Order: sequence, then C-alpha cells, then structure tokens
Amino acid sequence: MIILGIDPGIAIVGWGVIEFNQNRFRTVAYGAITTEAGQDVELRLNAVYEELCEIIEYYHPDEMAVEELFFTNNVTTGIPVAEARGVILLAGIRHGLRIAEYTPMQVKAAISGYGKAEKSQVMTMVTQILRLKSTPKPDDTADALAIAVCHAHSAGSRLAVFYNQKKTRLT
Amino acid sequence: MIILGIDPGIAIVGWGVIEFNQNRFRTVAYGAITTEAGQDVELRLNAVYEELCEIIEYYHPDEMAVEELFFTNNVTTGIPVAEARGVILLAGIRHGLRIAEYTPMQVKAAISGYGKAEKSQVMTMVTQILRLKSTPKPDDTADALAIAVCHAHSAGSRLAVFYNQKKTRLT
Repeated sequence: MIILGIDPGIAIVGWGVIEFNQNRFRTVAYGAITTEAGQDVELRLNAVYEELCEIIEYYHPDEMAVEELFFTNNVTTGIPVAEARGVILLAGIRHGLRIAEYTPMQVKAAISGYGKAEKSQVMTMVTQILRLKSTPKPDDTADALAIAVCHAHSAGSRLAVFYNQKKTRLT
Repeated sequence: MIILGIDPGIAIVGWGVIEFNQNRFRTVAYGAITTEAGQDVELRLNAVYEELCEIIEYYHPDEMAVEELFFTNNVTTGIPVAEARGVILLAGIRHGLRIAEYTPMQVKAAISGYGKAEKSQVMTMVTQILRLKSTPKPDDTADALAIAVCHAHSAGSRLAVFYNQKKTRLT
C-alpha cells in the first residue's frame, strides 16, 4: 500500500510518500509545497492544488492521510490554512484516494507510543522508523511522514480486523 | 459585467448571478448548493466544487465576490466552512475569474448604507434593488445576491477611478 501523508498549510504543505507492505516501510519521496506570502490567497490555493495533483499523479498513492486542524489562539491566521486543507482534500478525492484524518495527538501516539510526546522525540522516531540518514526538513515534511506512518499503523490494524471479520464470515 | 456572488458554507452555499451595466442591475439566476450532513467532508467539498464549476461554465461570470469568514465562538464548526471556501476560491481561479472578498459589514453598508443594519433590512433592500417579487430563499441565496450587489457598487467605483486615472494620464 502506498500512502501519501500531508501536513496542511497555506505557506508550506509538507508531504511524504511511503510504501507499507508486510509491516515493512519504504520511503518513496518527500518534500514541501511552498507558496509566496505576498500572493492572493486564491493563487496560493491554486498552487497547492496543482502541485499536489502532480505529486498524486506521479506517485499514485492508494490512500492519503491528512492532519486535522485545531484552532486555539490565532483563529484568523487559521482560516487560510483550513482553506488550503479544503483544496488538499479535494485533490485527494478527485484522484479517487481514500482519505483518513488524524489528530496531532493520534500521530504522536502512533509514532512514539505517547500522545503528548515532544515534537523532537517524534521527529527522531520517524527518522528511525523510516531508516532515514537525517530528519527531513522542513518540520512540515517530517510531520507529513509521521502522519503517513501513523496511517500505516492504523490501516494495518484495520486490515487485520477486516481479515478477522472475513474469516468469521467464512466459517 | 456579470458577477457571481457567493455566500460560502459546507451544508449550504448560496449563489447568485447578476449583470451590472451602466448602473442597472439584471438578475440572471440564483440558488443554493446543498450537501448531505452525514457525508464525509471530502465528498461534500467535491460536491460544492463540481456544482460551482457547472454554474461558472453555464453563466460565464466575469468576476466572483465571496464573503469573508469570521470565526468567533464556534471555531470547530467553522473549519469545514473554511475548507469549503477554499474549494470555492479554487473553482473561481481555475476558471480565470477575478475574485473579490467582502466582510459582512461591507456588504451591509453597500446595500443599506449602514454596516450594522439588521439582516431583515438587508434582505428587503436587496430584493428591491434587484426588483424581485419576493426575497430569495434560503437566506444564503439572498446573502449571495447581496454580496454580488456589493461588488457591483465597489467595482463601479473602481472603474470610475480607473477612468479618471486614464483621463488624467491622457491630458
């Protein structure tokens, strides 16, 4: 299964493509889509959409995992990020991808076993899990890979459940 | 000039198409895109995107006017609305439309002359301005027409400024 992990944003969208088969990970590619701060938001949204469509068409992921947004203090700066997340979900669904969403706490728990782990700890863990020489930069890219790994774990258990259900039904 | 006004939402997107020429309005069409509450958000976003693309391709507006979002109390329910607004802006820019944004206060001021006017007053005024027999329903549709009228006024003065600048430059 090929998974595209996304850390949504309007200035920087982190992305990472991993392959997960028989409990083994292979890192396919990762990077960040960046948009210019001075540009109109609709042009930035279009840049995110177009680049993400290219990534999907190039790597052909089966599933997409996207981090959920939480607005706490600064709601106003969060609006363009949510708008960007909208076009990210749109790019996924228009390419027929199954889409899963995870909270930051779920991602941390999946990577480090603890939902309130330090960011640096999660970064170190994801680098080890994917056997990378160094932690990918920017942080948004490392986050996107963490989301993809989180989804692989979650999808792994989902498939297990599915297999069990099937077995039950067959007997 | 043909203007498409949009009141963004995830459950209901109000839309209205008006023509504005030589300070006269003609109402072309209006309605609402609705999505099912139980559906996954990415499917709802896709429904909004596809229907809006159809509207744009059918009525060929020159410009799009979209209301700005303000999150005050309930930020969490606002996130899908902002995501929908993202795909709305994307549909506009991908069809080459010029896009303008207005705050609710700017819309109220443009229609009724007072930024803190009652909603019902704005509805009555927009119905009169567009010479409609009754106020369009749902409210989101009437709001979308109000946003389009607001943009016509604003664009009208913008053209006036442009004409003056040109005249100045020519002399």
